[in-house]
Amino acid sequence: MSMATALDTDDATAQVRALAEAARAASHTLALAETGAKNDALTAAANAIRGAEPALLEANAKDVAFGQEKNLSAAMIDRLKLDPARIEAMAAGLESVAALPDPVGEVMAAWERPNGLRIERVRVPLGVIGVIYESRPNVTADAGGLCLKSGNAAILRGGSESIHSSGVITECLQRGLEDAGLPRACIQMVPTRDRAAVGAMLARPDLIDVIVPRGGKSLIERVMNEARMPVFAHLEGLCHVYVDGAADPEMARAIAFNAKMRRTGICGAAETLLVDRRADPAILQAIISDLAEEGCELRGDEDVRKLDGRVKDATEDDWYTEYLDTILSVRLVDGVEAAIDHINHYGSHHTDSIVTEDADAARRFLAEVDSAIVMHNTSTQFADGGEFGMGAEIGISTGRMHARGPVGTEQLTSFKYVVRGEGQIRP
Amino acid sequence: MSMATALDTDDATAQVRALAEAARAASHTLALAETGAKNDALTAAANAIRGAEPALLEANAKDVAFGQEKNLSAAMIDRLKLDPARIEAMAAGLESVAALPDPVGEVMAAWERPNGLRIERVRVPLGVIGVIYESRPNVTADAGGLCLKSGNAAILRGGSESIHSSGVITECLQRGLEDAGLPRACIQMVPTRDRAAVGAMLARPDLIDVIVPRGGKSLIERVMNEARMPVFAHLEGLCHVYVDGAADPEMARAIAFNAKMRRTGICGAAETLLVDRRADPAILQAIISDLAEEGCELRGDEDVRKLDGRVKDATEDDWYTEYLDTILSVRLVDGVEAAIDHINHYGSHHTDSIVTEDADAARRFLAEVDSAIVMHNTSTQFADGGEFGMGAEIGISTGRMHARGPVGTEQLTSFKYVVRGEGQIRP
Repeated sequence: MSMATALDTDDATAQVRALAEAARAASHTLALAETGAKNDALTAAANAIRGAEPALLEANAKDVAFGQEKNLSAAMIDRLKLDPARIEAMAAGLESVAALPDPVGEVMAAWERPNGLRIERVRVPLGVIGVIYESRPNVTADAGGLCLKSGNAAILRGGSESIHSSGVITECLQRGLEDAGLPRACIQMVPTRDRAAVGAMLARPDLIDVIVPRGGKSLIERVMNEARMPVFAHLEGLCHVYVDGAADPEMARAIAFNAKMRRTGICGAAETLLVDRRADPAILQAIISDLAEEGCELRGDEDVRKLDGRVKDATEDDWYTEYLDTILSVRLVDGVEAAIDHINHYGSHHTDSIVTEDADAARRFLAEVDSAIVMHNTSTQFADGGEFGMGAEIGISTGRMHARGPVGTEQLTSFKYVVRGEGQIRP
Repeated sequence: MSMATALDTDDATAQVRALAEAARAASHTLALAETGAKNDALTAAANAIRGAEPALLEANAKDVAFGQEKNLSAAMIDRLKLDPARIEAMAAGLESVAALPDPVGEVMAAWERPNGLRIERVRVPLGVIGVIYESRPNVTADAGGLCLKSGNAAILRGGSESIHSSGVITECLQRGLEDAGLPRACIQMVPTRDRAAVGAMLARPDLIDVIVPRGGKSLIERVMNEARMPVFAHLEGLCHVYVDGAADPEMARAIAFNAKMRRTGICGAAETLLVDRRADPAILQAIISDLAEEGCELRGDEDVRKLDGRVKDATEDDWYTEYLDTILSVRLVDGVEAAIDHINHYGSHHTDSIVTEDADAARRFLAEVDSAIVMHNTSTQFADGGEFGMGAEIGISTGRMHARGPVGTEQLTSFKYVVRGEGQIRP
C-alpha cells in the first residue's frame, strides 16, 4: 500500500477523508482518460495479479487463519479462500472488462433545434464510487475493474477478514494504473479493520458520489439507512415464479425447477411459487415431486398441502422470506391479478416471472408487477448483468433512481449536455 | 379541497402521511393509465382553470393581501399575483403538456441474447414526486401537469403566501383527473401553512420517491440537507461565459451581452465573464461598454479595471456569487485551461459557454468543464427545458444522479427490464 500518510493516523474518519480526497482528485484525471489507457491499466493489472500469485496465496492464508480464529462458518471461509483457479478467474475477469465497450463519451442522444443549436447528451463518469463488501476478495478486482472502465475512482472497503488478500489485489490494480500512466489513487482500499470507516464513508456525499454495498442483508440495511448519498443495491431478491392456468405444463415444470434449484444462494433464485388455482393440479404435483426429490423443502398453504403430504405448513412470514436455500414457499392464487397483488405486496421488486401461453395474462403481468426485472416464460436465474449481455455487473439494484436492475459500466455513468451553436443568442 | 380526514388533524406530520399514502396508492393506478386518459385529465384541468377564473382571482386577492400584511417585497407580490393572462397561460401550459409525447411505456432499448431471450428496457414512472416551491402559484399547475403526464402522483407544497390560489388550482387539477376517471389523489396539495409539513415530506423516502424544490437558495439548501430521498435541483446557476483568444469579436460581444442581460433573474444568466488574456483588448472594451451603457455593474480584477474606469473592484467572494441581477464579475485568464480551472473551482456545475473559433479549445472546454450543460458559441440563457425541445421542465438539476440538466417528463421516469422467452432455463 502506498498510503503512508493515511496509515499514520489511527483515526478511521481521517483515513477515509484522505483516501476520498485523493480519489476525488484522481477522478478528474480518470474521467478524461482515453479508452486505451484504461484498457492498458486493466490488462496490466490482470498480469500483475497473475504475477502476484505467491504473494496472494500467502496473504490469503493469513486471512483464512484470521477467519478460522473468528469462527467464520465453512461457507464464509470458502468464499474467502483463493486458489490458483480463482486467481486466474480474477485476472481473466479484468481482461474481459477491458474488452467491454467504453461507455464514457458515448453520445446517448443528439438532436438539432429549429434555431440551429445542436444538442448532444454525452455519457460521463459518475465520479467516485464507494464499494462496501464482505468476505469475497475477488470483489476487489471485479468492482475496481468496473469502476475503472467506467471512468470512476473507486474506494473499496472489503470485509475485515479479507484485508490481506484485498490489499495485494489493490496493489496489483494500482500497479496497472501506474503502468498506464494513470493515478494510483483511482483505486484505493480502506486499509483498516475499524468499522468506523464504513460510517465515515457513508457520511461524505461531497467526496463519494454513490455507494455500492455487496453482502448480507444487515450490511445492505445499514448502508441504505445511513448513507447520505445514493445507494445502488437490493436488500433482497425475493423472486417469484407464477404458473398461470394457461401455462405449458412441461415449460412450467422446467422453469420452476431451474428458478429454485440451479443455484439457491443467488439473488435471482425463486423463493415463492404461485400457481393459478385453475391450473391442472398435475402441473403443481409434478413440480413438487421434482423439487422434493432433489431435497428441496416445500412450505405451502392449505390447498397446496392437500395436494402432497411432503409440503409443510407455510406461515405468513414465509411469504416475506428470502431463503437463499433449498426451501420454496408455494401458494395457490386466483389468476394473474391475485399473483400480481401477492408479488407487489410480499416481493422485493427484484425479478419475477410468469409462465403462460396467454398473451393477455403475460402483458398484464409484465406491466403491473412493479419489479426491476419482469419475465415471461423464462427462469428468474437469468437476472444477471452477464446474462443480460452487459459483460459484467457490480450488483443489482431494486431502487428506481438512476440504476435499476443489473448495474454494469453504463449504469455507473452520468451524462452532460453539449450544446453547439454558431453565435445564437436567445430572443 | 377533498381532504377532510387530513384536515381534521392539526398535526402536519399526520397530514403529510395521509396525503402521501393516498398518493402512493393512486400512483399505482396512474402508472398504468392510458396516454389518452392522462391527456383528457390535462385538458379537462385546463378548462377547469379557465372556468374557475373568478374563484381564482378571489382566492389570489386573499393571498396578495396576506403577502402585503407580511410585507413581502414588490417582486414577491408580483410573482404571487394572478391576472386573466396568467390564468390563461397556466391553462395553455397544461394543454401543451397534454400535447407532449408520453414517456411511459417507451422502449428505450431492445436486444436479443444468443439464447433467444428478448430484453427490453421500458420506461415506467418514478412513483410519487414531492414538489416544494415558493410564491408563484402557477408552479402548482406546471408541476402537477408534468407529474401527471409522466405517470407520477404529485404532492405539492406551495409557499404559505399562495395557499388560497394553489388550493383552487389543485381543485381544478383534481376535477380534471376525476373527469378522466383517474384518482383525485394523483395530485394533492399540502393544505397547511405549518412549516413542519416540509420536514415531514423530507423524512418519508418510503412514501415520496423524489423531491423537486423550486425557489430561493435557502429553501433548496434546506431540502438538499434534510431530504432522505433523491433531490432534483440546482442550488445556484453560477454560469460563465469564456471568451477565448480565438473568439469571433462580434459573436463574443453578442453572446456576453445576451447571456447576462436578456433576463438577469434566471438560473441560466451569466454571472462571470472570463476573457483570455491573449484576446484583443478591444473585444472586452466593447463588451464592457455594451453592459455599462445598459446599467450593468461590472466588477473586475486589476487587469480589467485598468481597461475601463467604470469597472469596480472584484473581491474573491465575487467569483463565488450568483447575482441574479445586473451585475457581472469579469476576469482575465491565461487561456482555456485557466478558464476551465476557474469554472470547475468557482462554478455551480450548471451551464457554461466558450466563445471561440478554435476547435481544439472548444473540444477541451466541452470535455473538461464539469457542468450539466456545456456550450460552444451560444448563450447560457438557452439552459432551459423548453429551449432544449423537452416541451417543459420542472426544474434544472446539477446533480449527477438520474436527472442532470433540464428535468422534463422523461427525467421524471425510471425503467424496468422486460424479458421474454420461450421456456429458456439457465444452464
